[in-house]
Amino acid sequence: MRSVPPSSLAQALLANRGPAQRRALAKAITLLESTRPDHRAQADALLTELLPHTGKSFRLGISGVPGVGKSTFIEALGLFLIARGHRVAVLAVDPSSSVSGGSILGDKTRMEHLSMDERAYIRPSPASGTLGGVAEKTREAMLVCEAAGHDVVIVETVGVGQSETAVAGMTDMYCLLQLPNAGDDLQAIKKGVMELADLVVINKVDLDAAAATRAQAQITSSLRLLGYSGHSHGPHDEQVWHPQVMQLSALKNQGLDRFWAAVAQFQKLQTANGKLAARRQQQAKDWMWERIHAGLRQQFAASLAVRGVLDDRTQQVLQGRLAASTAARELLHLFSGSDPNLSNGNSHA
Amino acid sequence: MRSVPPSSLAQALLANRGPAQRRALAKAITLLESTRPDHRAQADALLTELLPHTGKSFRLGISGVPGVGKSTFIEALGLFLIARGHRVAVLAVDPSSSVSGGSILGDKTRMEHLSMDERAYIRPSPASGTLGGVAEKTREAMLVCEAAGHDVVIVETVGVGQSETAVAGMTDMYCLLQLPNAGDDLQAIKKGVMELADLVVINKVDLDAAAATRAQAQITSSLRLLGYSGHSHGPHDEQVWHPQVMQLSALKNQGLDRFWAAVAQFQKLQTANGKLAARRQQQAKDWMWERIHAGLRQQFAASLAVRGVLDDRTQQVLQGRLAASTAARELLHLFSGSDPNLSNGNSHA
Repeated sequence: MRSVPPSSLAQALLANRGPAQRRALAKAITLLESTRPDHRAQADALLTELLPHTGKSFRLGISGVPGVGKSTFIEALGLFLIARGHRVAVLAVDPSSSVSGGSILGDKTRMEHLSMDERAYIRPSPASGTLGGVAEKTREAMLVCEAAGHDVVIVETVGVGQSETAVAGMTDMYCLLQLPNAGDDLQAIKKGVMELADLVVINKVDLDAAAATRAQAQITSSLRLLGYSGHSHGPHDEQVWHPQVMQLSALKNQGLDRFWAAVAQFQKLQTANGKLAARRQQQAKDWMWERIHAGLRQQFAASLAVRGVLDDRTQQVLQGRLAASTAARELLHLFSGSDPNLSNGNSHA
Repeated sequence: MRSVPPSSLAQALLANRGPAQRRALAKAITLLESTRPDHRAQADALLTELLPHTGKSFRLGISGVPGVGKSTFIEALGLFLIARGHRVAVLAVDPSSSVSGGSILGDKTRMEHLSMDERAYIRPSPASGTLGGVAEKTREAMLVCEAAGHDVVIVETVGVGQSETAVAGMTDMYCLLQLPNAGDDLQAIKKGVMELADLVVINKVDLDAAAATRAQAQITSSLRLLGYSGHSHGPHDEQVWHPQVMQLSALKNQGLDRFWAAVAQFQKLQTANGKLAARRQQQAKDWMWERIHAGLRQQFAASLAVRGVLDDRTQQVLQGRLAASTAARELLHLFSGSDPNLSNGNSHA
């Protein structure tokens, strides 16, 4: 697969600017999202070809509950960045999009000004089933955007459970947008996303400055109690990034300069101390294994030997006539039974 | 496997009381913990034979950080229960026991009085590798204890990450022991264990009654903000259990009657509304799939075709020369390639 000669698609992506590149970008991502085996082989060849030209962007993850103002924030930030010479890509992870029939970014009028600017590229979330599958397509789209010269890639997700973890797992920095509400931070702690946050942004300070200040104090205190911040453990290490909390108003265009200064400081520190490179390596490894495990589950589900007895054994387990571990061992044996290359999972499952 | 005639071990477990049954119980659990394939087959036959005689106990999960007083609490509770005619089994999940060389329950002097009573059976955590493997042995040991007539099975774990989830996933009711410390509840929320708790017990009130009262108010308030408690959502449903917070002192033997009254109320409600049976069915199903997924990973790791290239592909991924998803597809293809029964994971991984 990896010996395919450079395709015209890759050349259009790497060499051109303007409408031709834009079309190539859209076409490449559509190819990546295809489920046809021949398309998938082409997409893998394309990815391998593009890979040396990727990785030069800063990858910024953004999440927050519905109503926190993500679209307004991302549009304001995107316009701020292109005015300073950056080329911005906005991608999304929304595993619910295939259910709802529309992506959180499907309607480009959501970011009206940014979507019309040719220095920005906005792509809705892929609409294909599992979170793992959706995240994979977004990761691949990110690589293609990087190859096309976008130097800031923003990946957003709506705050629903595991998708934040997926976004934090594919970006260099993860920012959590919060409303100045009591309890909002507890929800974030509960979902485990506070733990992932490199930066917590309290948006909509224009609505209630006093509440925003209380929220900032509360979240800072929570971070300290949870031990996420370095402040509670000995001297503050200047060489390492410590999670921060800041207030701004994307609607009023207030605070974006401070936000981007914090991002730039994060990038500088984490590049110098090697943590950014290490994070990317770990992400690539985790990504590979996540896809392997998902693929193994698919192979198991597709195995004829397994399918022949799975319903019956599941019923026996549910009715308490067969121990779950005994059923698992039998099914694993059936799965691997016909392949002498595989060990017998029975003896040590 | 399931046609093996009733073994003498099963008969000793089901028929006898006293020292003979106690020896059979220890022997059965040792058999379950063996990694020898022939032992494993015997253990599966034994489990299937015992299964109709299991499930009649109440399964109580207990966790809490080191120092919270778990041993004192469980010993006091165990003595309280056997004095009221119950037969108690105490099991443990401690995935670190194989590293530390000793289980959290290895030293029976930890529960000196309870361990000497023949109405109680205390078994240290199995010491074998992964959390999934340790949890499996404990689940199986629980079934054997139930078949031997123990009507209360307590499964404890020390508060280290995922082990609480494993214990909550194998018991009818999960109780979280807390110290009356500020921040203790935030740690529990962070680790996701507050969410699992059916009952939060603030132990050691003898040390500081005022702090315990503050902790109770704080945890109750957190539960409400997090939406775990029914109080914030419309009328309180009397037919459904709502997580509770209570104070006691196991050391002073104060509050165990209230604790057990709450457990009895939980059992009554959740039996009447069907949630206890549904929880057990879901647990059995989850257990089966957890073991299947672990087994698939083992088979993958043992595949000769995979082992031949895994290191190389991992290096290519880490060096940015191969996309993680492309590597995953190639490895999955190698894994399944020689088995015509399996679908090609390449096209839709």
